Amino acid sequence: MKNYLAEFFGTFWLVFGGCGSALFAAGIPELGIGYLGVSLAFGLTVLTMAYAVGHISGGHFNPAVSFGLFAGGRFPAKELLPYIISQVLGALVAGAALYCIVKGNNTPMVIDNTHAGAFAANGYGDLSPHGYTPGAAFLAEFLLTAFFLIIILGATDRFANGQFAGIAIGLALTLIHLISIPITNTSVNPARSTSQAIFAGGGYIPQLWLFWVAPIAGGILGGLIYKTLLQKPETR
Amino acid sequence: MKNYLAEFFGTFWLVFGGCGSALFAAGIPELGIGYLGVSLAFGLTVLTMAYAVGHISGGHFNPAVSFGLFAGGRFPAKELLPYIISQVLGALVAGAALYCIVKGNNTPMVIDNTHAGAFAANGYGDLSPHGYTPGAAFLAEFLLTAFFLIIILGATDRFANGQFAGIAIGLALTLIHLISIPITNTSVNPARSTSQAIFAGGGYIPQLWLFWVAPIAGGILGGLIYKTLLQKPETR
Amino acid sequence: MKNYLAEFFGTFWLVFGGCGSALFAAGIPELGIGYLGVSLAFGLTVLTMAYAVGHISGGHFNPAVSFGLFAGGRFPAKELLPYIISQVLGALVAGAALYCIVKGNNTPMVIDNTHAGAFAANGYGDLSPHGYTPGAAFLAEFLLTAFFLIIILGATDRFANGQFAGIAIGLALTLIHLISIPITNTSVNPARSTSQAIFAGGGYIPQLWLFWVAPIAGGILGGLIYKTLLQKPETR
Amino acid sequence: MKNYLAEFFGTFWLVFGGCGSALFAAGIPELGIGYLGVSLAFGLTVLTMAYAVGHISGGHFNPAVSFGLFAGGRFPAKELLPYIISQVLGALVAGAALYCIVKGNNTPMVIDNTHAGAFAANGYGDLSPHGYTPGAAFLAEFLLTAFFLIIILGATDRFANGQFAGIAIGLALTLIHLISIPITNTSVNPARSTSQAIFAGGGYIPQLWLFWVAPIAGGILGGLIYKTLLQKPETR
Repeated sequence: MKNYLAEFFGTFWLVFGGCGSALFAAGIPELGIGYLGVSLAFGLTVLTMAYAVGHISGGHFNPAVSFGLFAGGRFPAKELLPYIISQVLGALVAGAALYCIVKGNNTPMVIDNTHAGAFAANGYGDLSPHGYTPGAAFLAEFLLTAFFLIIILGATDRFANGQFAGIAIGLALTLIHLISIPITNTSVNPARSTSQAIFAGGGYIPQLWLFWVAPIAGGILGGLIYKTLLQKPETR
Repeated sequence: MKNYLAEFFGTFWLVFGGCGSALFAAGIPELGIGYLGVSLAFGLTVLTMAYAVGHISGGHFNPAVSFGLFAGGRFPAKELLPYIISQVLGALVAGAALYCIVKGNNTPMVIDNTHAGAFAANGYGDLSPHGYTPGAAFLAEFLLTAFFLIIILGATDRFANGQFAGIAIGLALTLIHLISIPITNTSVNPARSTSQAIFAGGGYIPQLWLFWVAPIAGGILGGLIYKTLLQKPETR
Repeated sequence: MKNYLAEFFGTFWLVFGGCGSALFAAGIPELGIGYLGVSLAFGLTVLTMAYAVGHISGGHFNPAVSFGLFAGGRFPAKELLPYIISQVLGALVAGAALYCIVKGNNTPMVIDNTHAGAFAANGYGDLSPHGYTPGAAFLAEFLLTAFFLIIILGATDRFANGQFAGIAIGLALTLIHLISIPITNTSVNPARSTSQAIFAGGGYIPQLWLFWVAPIAGGILGGLIYKTLLQKPETR
Repeated sequence: MKNYLAEFFGTFWLVFGGCGSALFAAGIPELGIGYLGVSLAFGLTVLTMAYAVGHISGGHFNPAVSFGLFAGGRFPAKELLPYIISQVLGALVAGAALYCIVKGNNTPMVIDNTHAGAFAANGYGDLSPHGYTPGAAFLAEFLLTAFFLIIILGATDRFANGQFAGIAIGLALTLIHLISIPITNTSVNPARSTSQAIFAGGGYIPQLWLFWVAPIAGGILGGLIYKTLLQKPETR
């Protein structure tokens, strides 16, 4: 049970920290943290929680990671559903907390879900931050999640310096955001996409499918690549 | 006695480095470090001092952290008062040093305490950097300190990679600032708020209560969450 | 064979992440990540892959690194060619993936190879981002690669804290970019230069020689400096 | 002899990387790295070289650090002079290399030594980047170097996690720059100040004294504070 709670709190932190930095601090003129600061924030949510609760749950905080670890032979199938439920619940509660703070502004921010990036939600086409097509969005999410899983499986391989995995994996998520915020606002994480789409509403709901399919398919591919092409036989 | 001195010097560094970077370097046109640089600076004060004097005092540098560690069963009640006194004294001396440098400018900067962010002080409502209500400010400070303590207790758990705790905890403070500088100028630390409020004066003094109550309440909640919901039985 | 695949995937990631962040996210007004974000991205590609697959292939991802490690006595001559082929292939496939995403923009970006930085390619003279001569470009690439190799050989020395080599080497690449993006768009890596020059085309092709000669010559010098002047006798 | 060469190469890298990033990349409109990028660059020069050659020379790269380690009882007096000579020589050669690249620009940059920050040199009063008096400049350099040494001595204490010292010390230098670039362009290192003052010339030469006296006095104070107030008896 403690592992499900760890996934709940960890995914809360990922959404509250990553999307919160985007909502409150990214776009302030002159002083704002921009896409670079948001990228750092997302990565640090994972880095910090990996060292805090990674020893309890493994530190997935992301359904695509759970699927990828399953494909890589490191996570049992029967744990997929409870992990993913814990992750989505954590994301939803974080979305609610963000919503309360956004509404607690003296000049309440309007969430305009006809524009890209509303409530830090993920989108493509008209809702891509800088006009990328569904195909480009799918390719980016798919490839980035695949490499995210290669890094996760490699950094936690028994032959690797596993103590550093929290740094490598957290900063991999920073890197992924540095590349792709302009494309889809960066998902690679269906739980994070779900909470923000639900609170943003409007056109984000019918686009949510892509941010489940592409990351999970990419995650599974990454898991298989590492297991079959890179992992040394002794570790199988 | 060395542990109290370590808390004094560590909290001096937190305030001098974090608030100093905000005062001297954040708002310079074109070249300034912005909220991203200030967030990094606050985190690095803790990261550097955690590795420097963490082995002497545990590296709290923050009354809310001391309370949270007490709530989590890792810090004795009788040490709370001397630790907090050491922390507040360190913060006050740092505030005085910052004041000397601010006044040593050829065109002396005026500290206008009717505006948000004066002398890097924390505020809400009219003194929130970007217009957040007291309720939103309280919620943000409360939640962020709670998660700060979950990370601190988790990263120093006997089952965790404790050597990395200084990195995880320092960068957690960076993350917290990336989220919330626009809301309250980010406290999560009553000592840091006290020194800056005293030197800023004016409307900051009557707001100081929130930056003691919310972080300490959040810290205690975080300590209890980790101890009761996440910590494995063998570590109690 | 697994080591060649590790070099292939690692160099793919270096080009896809480093050049991708430059293409998609660097120049966006107000929110873009700028040269600082691109520098961080390049470094994180190496940091992440060093922990992920460094235990498989050594984590070169760069022909100049392979040559430098050979000069430093740490890599066998017979592995140079297969490593370099794997690296160049990985870079080329990454260039193709980037090309697909660039073309998947609602307002397709034109790659204007008469201007500096087209498709994140490296250049000097007219194609230097900020007008540096061939001589200055050669000197910068030569010196930076030499020091890159000194850091690589030193951080992986048997007397060093080798577990931290991935952090030191990755962040060394970040530092190198912080210095030299304005000079040549920063290569220090012939594989990365080759893929981008081929997709950019035009004036970048005849300039490609410099980004093979200067990094490899610098890498060899760095390897020799470390081996002959710095390495302790017992490690030879 | 290898330790002197390590100090030479390490200090070269500190000046070439830190000042080079300032000269080439800081002030570029829109895309430039700003004071935040320069702060990161200085810190990464030390982080990278600490892991690369720290095991050879201890990784000082700075006369104030050598003096502070002597005051803290960790460095023999007879090594002070050869270390400092090696450091100043490394800085001077780096200054010459930077000068060559600066001059290798199609529109040669003029080094106007009547303005602050010329050739990344350190200054106060009229040559302070943002108008700080000599007193404020001295106080900042003195305090920052004192805390730099407390961190260095603490992070390398036998009771500390010494493997992380390179990260803590390097990022401490980043933090110091985040605070004080606007005050003095940040020295805390007489070797770095000397090379840049000599190549900048003009008003920087008569100001050089402060950047020897304040950092060395601060370094000695920091060394004494750690040794007498913080270090546990068993480590003396």
